[in-house]
Amino acid sequence: MNQVIETLLQHRSIRRFKEQRLDREQIEAIVKSAQAASTFSFIQAYSIIGVTDQKKKDKLAELAGNQAYVAANGHFFVFCADLHRLMVVGEMENADLSESIESTEKFMVALIDAALAAQNAAIAAESLGLGICYIGGIRNDLEAVKDVLKTPEHVIPLFGMAVGYPDQETDLKPRLPMANIYMENEYQKDRSLFEKQMHDYNETTSEYYRVRTGGKREDTWTGQMVKMVGGKSRMYMKEFVEKQNLNKK
Amino acid sequence: MNQVIETLLQHRSIRRFKEQRLDREQIEAIVKSAQAASTFSFIQAYSIIGVTDQKKKDKLAELAGNQAYVAANGHFFVFCADLHRLMVVGEMENADLSESIESTEKFMVALIDAALAAQNAAIAAESLGLGICYIGGIRNDLEAVKDVLKTPEHVIPLFGMAVGYPDQETDLKPRLPMANIYMENEYQKDRSLFEKQMHDYNETTSEYYRVRTGGKREDTWTGQMVKMVGGKSRMYMKEFVEKQNLNKK
Repeated sequence: MNQVIETLLQHRSIRRFKEQRLDREQIEAIVKSAQAASTFSFIQAYSIIGVTDQKKKDKLAELAGNQAYVAANGHFFVFCADLHRLMVVGEMENADLSESIESTEKFMVALIDAALAAQNAAIAAESLGLGICYIGGIRNDLEAVKDVLKTPEHVIPLFGMAVGYPDQETDLKPRLPMANIYMENEYQKDRSLFEKQMHDYNETTSEYYRVRTGGKREDTWTGQMVKMVGGKSRMYMKEFVEKQNLNKK
Repeated sequence: MNQVIETLLQHRSIRRFKEQRLDREQIEAIVKSAQAASTFSFIQAYSIIGVTDQKKKDKLAELAGNQAYVAANGHFFVFCADLHRLMVVGEMENADLSESIESTEKFMVALIDAALAAQNAAIAAESLGLGICYIGGIRNDLEAVKDVLKTPEHVIPLFGMAVGYPDQETDLKPRLPMANIYMENEYQKDRSLFEKQMHDYNETTSEYYRVRTGGKREDTWTGQMVKMVGGKSRMYMKEFVEKQNLNKK
């Protein structure tokens, strides 16, 4: 075990921050770390928007479902899948790249590129003693987020990241059993093994919630997932993404 | 600057490895680091398949466009978007989650979750003195990859990652100017500033290729992108993904 792996394994989301802002040097270290991540075929199909305007932060907090820590943090980043840049590059070089750019393949590339960069940003921030929380809630209403950030066609704001000096202590959240996530040579389809793994994991997560809430929360992972996924959130997404002329072909 | 950020900034892809295999402890450290990454609403919508069977590695190397380092490395991981797990969880809990699982929103969640985990894996491997290379080439023919790895419906193998002891020295690849990737408060649309940034970046990348190839390769980033994106690769992806019953609604 080294210091890097220790930083990775110590990750927990932080949702309450001290008032102190990040300074320019910290922001640069985080963004440069993000940029150092791998990118498919050198395409770098993402952009990062730092939100410092408090009115915009308040609006995003409201859109994300009234998450206070979207407004109150040391810095707020929004990671976007960005294929607009390549459309403009195409124009500059007199090439119409739209058919390729509007494909599902390129949509996937942009999502993955943005996520790789974001995770490097998260690690860099945590290594500086800062806490982070990914904010998927900005996808609740991307039309409105698009208006706030003035993103053009071929750009999708994917998630936010609140960063700041932690003002709370939180516990490590237990992950799925490694044998369930990691398989060798082929996908594991043994149903009884799967059910056993879920049973064990439900016990682990129940215990986690019990301890954390002083016995108030009774919840299993499978129960939680059925509730969350069954909620059918953000079913407008396909239409929104296609309206931005992505994921169409 | 600390040791973690230094590791992030020193990233370069490695495409030639020594013959030495990773041991179980290294593989576990890498997978556990991957699992420690953030996941949206605790969904953990990905799986990792380690490929140790040499015949399968050879086949994947061929499918990825004859990339030798897919077959010859210390360990080969395939990162998959995985919503199959949740379908089974739904069955166990007598809930039909298919409408939600087959939405574009959940497809995005699974891609992002898989990429966050993968980037943690990459960082962990590099911190152990290993080299890595992401392999998008497995998306050349996902029908065939699916047969090799026996992935079920609602699972998409997204990319491979070759890991091993580096047997080459490679240079840091210059990234887009930070001012082009990182904006504040709103998306930057000034066309003349954009063209200036691209001009500068083209000079940087040209110089990189010139030095690296002893003057043999003349290339700019924008030229390279027009060629690569204009190539319209993997236009079958939308159909393939929908056939796995994802990204449909």
